[in-house]
Amino acid sequence: MTNSPKSRDGYQWTKATGLVQGVPTLGLIQPSTHFTRGKHYDVIVIGGGYAGLTTCRDLALAGNNVLLVEARDRIGGRSWSSNIGGYPYEMGGTWVHWHQPFVWRELRRYGMMDQLEISPRKNVEGGAKVTVNLDGEVKHLSHDEEDGTVTNSAIQDATVESAFKKFINVDGQFGRSVIPYPHDIEFNMAGVQEYDHMSMADRMAQVAPHLTPLEKNMFEGFLAITHGAKWEEASFFELLRWWALMNYNYPDFMAIGLTYKLRDGQSALARRIFDEAVATGRLDYSFSTPVRDVIDHGDRVEVTARNGVEVFKARRLVCTVPLNVLHTLAFTPGLPTLKTEASLAGHVNQVVKCHAEVANPEMRSLGATNYPNGRLTYTFGDGTTPAGNTHLVAFGSSLPGVHLDPEQDIQVTKKAFEEFYPGMNVQRLVFHNWHKDEFARGAWEWLRPGMTTKYLQALRERHGNVFFASSDSSFGWRGFIDGAIDDGGRVAKIVHDELRDVRPVASKL
Amino acid sequence: MTNSPKSRDGYQWTKATGLVQGVPTLGLIQPSTHFTRGKHYDVIVIGGGYAGLTTCRDLALAGNNVLLVEARDRIGGRSWSSNIGGYPYEMGGTWVHWHQPFVWRELRRYGMMDQLEISPRKNVEGGAKVTVNLDGEVKHLSHDEEDGTVTNSAIQDATVESAFKKFINVDGQFGRSVIPYPHDIEFNMAGVQEYDHMSMADRMAQVAPHLTPLEKNMFEGFLAITHGAKWEEASFFELLRWWALMNYNYPDFMAIGLTYKLRDGQSALARRIFDEAVATGRLDYSFSTPVRDVIDHGDRVEVTARNGVEVFKARRLVCTVPLNVLHTLAFTPGLPTLKTEASLAGHVNQVVKCHAEVANPEMRSLGATNYPNGRLTYTFGDGTTPAGNTHLVAFGSSLPGVHLDPEQDIQVTKKAFEEFYPGMNVQRLVFHNWHKDEFARGAWEWLRPGMTTKYLQALRERHGNVFFASSDSSFGWRGFIDGAIDDGGRVAKIVHDELRDVRPVASKL
Repeated sequence: MTNSPKSRDGYQWTKATGLVQGVPTLGLIQPSTHFTRGKHYDVIVIGGGYAGLTTCRDLALAGNNVLLVEARDRIGGRSWSSNIGGYPYEMGGTWVHWHQPFVWRELRRYGMMDQLEISPRKNVEGGAKVTVNLDGEVKHLSHDEEDGTVTNSAIQDATVESAFKKFINVDGQFGRSVIPYPHDIEFNMAGVQEYDHMSMADRMAQVAPHLTPLEKNMFEGFLAITHGAKWEEASFFELLRWWALMNYNYPDFMAIGLTYKLRDGQSALARRIFDEAVATGRLDYSFSTPVRDVIDHGDRVEVTARNGVEVFKARRLVCTVPLNVLHTLAFTPGLPTLKTEASLAGHVNQVVKCHAEVANPEMRSLGATNYPNGRLTYTFGDGTTPAGNTHLVAFGSSLPGVHLDPEQDIQVTKKAFEEFYPGMNVQRLVFHNWHKDEFARGAWEWLRPGMTTKYLQALRERHGNVFFASSDSSFGWRGFIDGAIDDGGRVAKIVHDELRDVRPVASKL
Repeated sequence: MTNSPKSRDGYQWTKATGLVQGVPTLGLIQPSTHFTRGKHYDVIVIGGGYAGLTTCRDLALAGNNVLLVEARDRIGGRSWSSNIGGYPYEMGGTWVHWHQPFVWRELRRYGMMDQLEISPRKNVEGGAKVTVNLDGEVKHLSHDEEDGTVTNSAIQDATVESAFKKFINVDGQFGRSVIPYPHDIEFNMAGVQEYDHMSMADRMAQVAPHLTPLEKNMFEGFLAITHGAKWEEASFFELLRWWALMNYNYPDFMAIGLTYKLRDGQSALARRIFDEAVATGRLDYSFSTPVRDVIDHGDRVEVTARNGVEVFKARRLVCTVPLNVLHTLAFTPGLPTLKTEASLAGHVNQVVKCHAEVANPEMRSLGATNYPNGRLTYTFGDGTTPAGNTHLVAFGSSLPGVHLDPEQDIQVTKKAFEEFYPGMNVQRLVFHNWHKDEFARGAWEWLRPGMTTKYLQALRERHGNVFFASSDSSFGWRGFIDGAIDDGGRVAKIVHDELRDVRPVASKL
């Protein structure tokens, strides 16, 4: 299979090519612009991630003329896949589940429900199993060394589950009384405030005396790549929220959050949404167009590109840039203080994600942790490549001293994989450095202590003719693909209803 | 609060009024018609239940001119609420959950996520608790009689759960290996065929030796009102499918299937979808208009009303009538044999649902079964009415000798409630007899053995310019509100894509 055309985003390393910036993706849009200069649009959407794509699709379907302005050369934002030799590597958001209502509706809409693949396969016969690095004492276990009845994967799961339940159980009901409705908007109830102001460090201090050394090591490794920040900078409430969304138990947590991925990669789904919007004949677009400023004139909004040349006009604007990027755009009138403050503070997640293709088929069932010293903390077998090699996906935390910028020294990155298991033969590395990406400035959303309570409602409010939609400030599955689609759809409806009310219905017939 | 206007549907009895046909509902549409005679529509939709409403809304939003033709005077089909003195009684489909993706998206769309109410409240202090009728020996337990630590509700749950797990566990994995993807379309895999050809009677014969008398009584009572038919007429696969959709365990089964209802009733949600469609200016409608025949002329479809006077024309037709009603419409060209056969065979569910307002506040927490001899099998406290009385909802099976047509002899219906618990003082009865309703011919879908395998795919296929959408033939949450919205949205997209391809885009700008 031939490769898709290359985006500027992402990196790939092989022995033959060395490190190369830019990887192929179905999400690249060519030609990169399609719009009429000087046209007054109904709506401009800044950002072509899932929130922006959903907004564009819903608004264009409903009869509005829409212009998408995107800084990158591709769609998908923080969820996109590099398609290398027909095999997708997920560079960001990956896993989906039928308990995520908004992304599930999209999969149904495009007939993709039967395109789920199980990502970590823990029970491949004869394969390498769990490896744990506990206080410098590394233990590697092969399938043959296992106890006959209990796999080491099961031990790994049982250990993390046991610790997780102690960590979550603030109410004797495993969080159910704190967040009875995981999609509810009432975040400011007293119970939530209490846990939102608590950091992961605060909670760990309460729970640590009740954890065994193995529990503490494995669970900390797991948590470190969940929030991707220093322990004291990450809100404990966010973990409670994830837990509630994932049905208040660990097996569902793993099934919903970390199991099912799309056969052809996230860019295949993003492409379907984009293509449906384009097919209406009412979506124009300008890729590779970072925005410099947004001016709301009252009767129209003007968007000026960073190059200062392009100026776009519309009656409404929907800004879907990530929270951590919002403050880099100049708004006139200026944004309310709470929005700016929230963006400047930013969410804290700087998790590293990195793929390796390794010439070790027996590692298909590998699951390994290397915490606290590994530059990559956690890896597992994520599939088999067209060459018959094993695809490993790995995550690294941003704890001091271990944060990895994978492109900086590729030998360090390669070594971080090799440390997971003896004899690993790395053939290819694929990754996107979200930490260094000026249009993301981080991975999935994980707010600081107190931010949900103080800023979430404000982040969602309109500012004149400017609306905001983002997974970073959605309700429900905030920080997930589902939350992006949710919030994009929500804002599209509000904007459409408002434009409908000021525009005679007959003009659209 | 004043009552809504009255539909012809439903019945209400009070001491003061006696039995009266027709109850107030937010779902009544007045005036009942709004269309232009002779107009050629893009799409005609037959049926204004959730499938039809979703189809209308999606198609009208996307720019199509749509005509809704509905036999009743109200929207909602088999899911509607009677609003009596500001209090909603759900006449059909009731419970929703955030694990039902399509209905959840609608609740988000209309800002109704925070309008969930917990329906059965089992732990009201001082209230009457469980009553069980086991082989004629009736046991009533009040709160005061309870064991201090284990509630009788808990015993009831534990008993049904224990039996349910034995009944479901055909694979040692509680059904997970049989239906790993509950929304999947691959129903004809070998495992599914096996269980689809098995009836509930077949499965009970296998499991009965392993059930205690109490387990058998309570679980049979539970199942009887789940499928609403004779044991040998109901497919066992349908239960496996429900179980898989409800996350393969009993607590989730109860939480997802039987816990959360809408504060203002289902008609409030149906109304939002209808009103959004009307607001586009592209939805016309004709209520109280049963359809006689549908003729597909190739270049247009003509629908003739039962009165023979009204003839409607459109380019495409979406038929959303229930499976059991489909064969009563005359199609030219005639429907494919499999569709007609399936409709004539019909799904089997003839469950009875009936509400009582009782002047016993202590029965707010009642949960009672009366199986096998009760005309009503199962009841529980479903809320508190504006008068401070208790609202009880009850279900009855259609097993031979006990099937209840509640309007036939209202004293029998009243007595069926009174049998549940001593001292019950019935003030009001509210119900819809789905069994006798010519536009439903039954309650929620439950197919006969073998029907899923033989007919499901055929029921979903288009027939020339005629498309079919229904909860009865949806994937995923088939037989639920979620399945109706799912299938209505699916077909709307197919029809819209097809019409877009034959219509120049510019004509809509």
